[in-house]
Amino acid sequence: MLRRLFAPTIEVSAHCDLPCGVYDPAQARIEAESVKAIIVKANDKPDDLDFKMRATVIKEQRSELVKHHLWVLWTDYFKPPHFEKYPQLHTLVNEATKLAGAGGTKASWDVATADELLAKIEEISTIFWETKKA
Amino acid sequence: MLRRLFAPTIEVSAHCDLPCGVYDPAQARIEAESVKAIIVKANDKPDDLDFKMRATVIKEQRSELVKHHLWVLWTDYFKPPHFEKYPQLHTLVNEATKLAGAGGTKASWDVATADELLAKIEEISTIFWETKKA
Amino acid sequence: MLRRLFAPTIEVSAHCDLPCGVYDPAQARIEAESVKAIIVKANDKPDDLDFKMRATVIKEQRSELVKHHLWVLWTDYFKPPHFEKYPQLHTLVNEATKLAGAGGTKASWDVATADELLAKIEEISTIFWETKKA
Amino acid sequence: MLRRLFAPTIEVSAHCDLPCGVYDPAQARIEAESVKAIIVKANDKPDDLDFKMRATVIKEQRSELVKHHLWVLWTDYFKPPHFEKYPQLHTLVNEATKLAGAGGTKASWDVATADELLAKIEEISTIFWETKKA
Amino acid sequence: MLRRLFAPTIEVSAHCDLPCGVYDPAQARIEAESVKAIIVKANDKPDDLDFKMRATVIKEQRSELVKHHLWVLWTDYFKPPHFEKYPQLHTLVNEATKLAGAGGTKASWDVATADELLAKIEEISTIFWETKKA
Amino acid sequence: MLRRLFAPTIEVSAHCDLPCGVYDPAQARIEAESVKAIIVKANDKPDDLDFKMRATVIKEQRSELVKHHLWVLWTDYFKPPHFEKYPQLHTLVNEATKLAGAGGTKASWDVATADELLAKIEEISTIFWETKKA
Repeated sequence: MLRRLFAPTIEVSAHCDLPCGVYDPAQARIEAESVKAIIVKANDKPDDLDFKMRATVIKEQRSELVKHHLWVLWTDYFKPPHFEKYPQLHTLVNEATKLAGAGGTKASWDVATADELLAKIEEISTIFWETKKA
Repeated sequence: MLRRLFAPTIEVSAHCDLPCGVYDPAQARIEAESVKAIIVKANDKPDDLDFKMRATVIKEQRSELVKHHLWVLWTDYFKPPHFEKYPQLHTLVNEATKLAGAGGTKASWDVATADELLAKIEEISTIFWETKKA
Repeated sequence: MLRRLFAPTIEVSAHCDLPCGVYDPAQARIEAESVKAIIVKANDKPDDLDFKMRATVIKEQRSELVKHHLWVLWTDYFKPPHFEKYPQLHTLVNEATKLAGAGGTKASWDVATADELLAKIEEISTIFWETKKA
Repeated sequence: MLRRLFAPTIEVSAHCDLPCGVYDPAQARIEAESVKAIIVKANDKPDDLDFKMRATVIKEQRSELVKHHLWVLWTDYFKPPHFEKYPQLHTLVNEATKLAGAGGTKASWDVATADELLAKIEEISTIFWETKKA
Repeated sequence: MLRRLFAPTIEVSAHCDLPCGVYDPAQARIEAESVKAIIVKANDKPDDLDFKMRATVIKEQRSELVKHHLWVLWTDYFKPPHFEKYPQLHTLVNEATKLAGAGGTKASWDVATADELLAKIEEISTIFWETKKA
Repeated sequence: MLRRLFAPTIEVSAHCDLPCGVYDPAQARIEAESVKAIIVKANDKPDDLDFKMRATVIKEQRSELVKHHLWVLWTDYFKPPHFEKYPQLHTLVNEATKLAGAGGTKASWDVATADELLAKIEEISTIFWETKKA
């Protein structure tokens, strides 16, 4: 997490499509952390169906937010030169959003799925911050 | 009702991330048609600021819906084999969503921008229906 | 792409209340197709409670969208002359929206309920396209 | 707190489609009162374009909420016997929702339009409370 | 319609942040009444899991609306002089919103929790109407 | 910004009301940064009314999100012991949310208002991180 040490002032995030120019992969990561925490908590109470039902409702929403924040980065922040420099970027974001969908954290209660999603977001984040420095 | 006679089975559309398996680029196209109609109507009343303000609010929403429906196709419907068969697909969807954003129909009042967006959606639609037949 | 050849001009849909003038019962039908697919899928996995819970969340949302799209047609598209020419129209739309509510697809897991809803939407659609031709 | 003393039991409102059974035309009326207040305030500042733009955004939202609350009453609360007893009910709700749309308070800055909308809601409200007493 | 005769002027509600100036604790109370009705209905059908799942989805939404309406009052309606005159007001609203959250009606299926929430809202309402008269 | 240096792992944010336990004032700050950027950009183009109209729509939304994220912290994260230890906390959050409303960044195009809002959020953030360390 060297980024944190050297770049405290650039931690603003991004999203509005004015565009305001404020973007940050942290928004997707935060929602993914929530998704992971929801899975852990629900797994800790295997016999509490009431809790599981609420967790289902909320995990669905938070996973959707992960997808949304990643889509915003892909469409609004990343530009052709970025896709040229990082040829894996399209696939990476596509896989990450799939991991937050029905084939990923929306349906899964396996914490490993959430970790996989978080790892993909970290990869996107690394590329993002490299492009910001460039 | 000729439409019903010739093409009843392919008119379902798609989106929910259960997934229900129902997808259709028509959803994006419909919103883009709205965006175009909004631009045309507003341009027809150049001196009606009240109308322009309402049109701004609504064009912003409809453009966002175009982006959303295209993102859903890109993440939820299209799979790795599709991206392999259509190497231009990532760029195509990325450009289409950009065309519905701040660099496209959100900010623009030029009907040509809406037409460009509709053309991109038509390209995506052509690929989509080819993959459905495959 | 036969569909495109035979019916290119009537496939636009409608909704925004500028109004942009773009309306199409397909929007309601698409959501209803989703609702039906959700019911079929959930019934196919009678022992998968996790899946059923997600299906419940999503069926609730999609049924609400059916209601919304039908309400838009009823209020924004249909005008007094239409209600005069089709005296059953108020009741038809009212029944269709009820069929997408708590007394219909929101609570029911019977595929017949979804089919009933789709049939009502088809009736509305027939009237809609007749008025467009008039 | 005279209000509490004289009318404690009828002040519940309605809407969720469980259904919870709680309905009240006050929800539509409240939003319509907002719409009227927005119009009055904007008209009081004819030269304040910044204010007018914000008012446009908010009036659009509040008018949409009026439509939504009336649609909920029409579909979820009112039943066939009500439509039989009050043959004007379909037309009344249809006109009221139209008055909150593009042909009504969404586009208009005339306080008379908001008053007309409020009068329609009052008519619906009178019928509503009669059916509750029945 | 006795209600209309005795209390016509104070039944408007409030919320939009133009601000339109229309506020009413009834909005929060109505949602809380819904929450209570949902709990009662679900408890009446202890063996109906399908119903319980729908009730979970809807109770989550309605509880969130209670929180939202109370937050609007706290931020948009109440001013420094109110907080000075009613030193318990901050804590009261904070407790009420907590009672509509995970530690309250979102997680609980005990009707007593909903009653507690309604009682807090009534306290807030009493203060609200006192400030309106002042 | 010593916090960044010493506490990289606690930068997850918070919000879902399961609760997942993930909270972070950064969510409010990010939206407030957007609001500030929107104001700066709009002021840079004093003659571009089209841009100003879009900026109005978006600033309204982003300001509302600031309010929402702060309300979540106030109700869901902060507990009675926090309010006891920081007696200014109620007033601080109340003032911050007011600064993101009609009396603050929603209506204002003065960058100083956005800075004031950001300063309040920073104060809340400082308290937040102190309570996390405790």
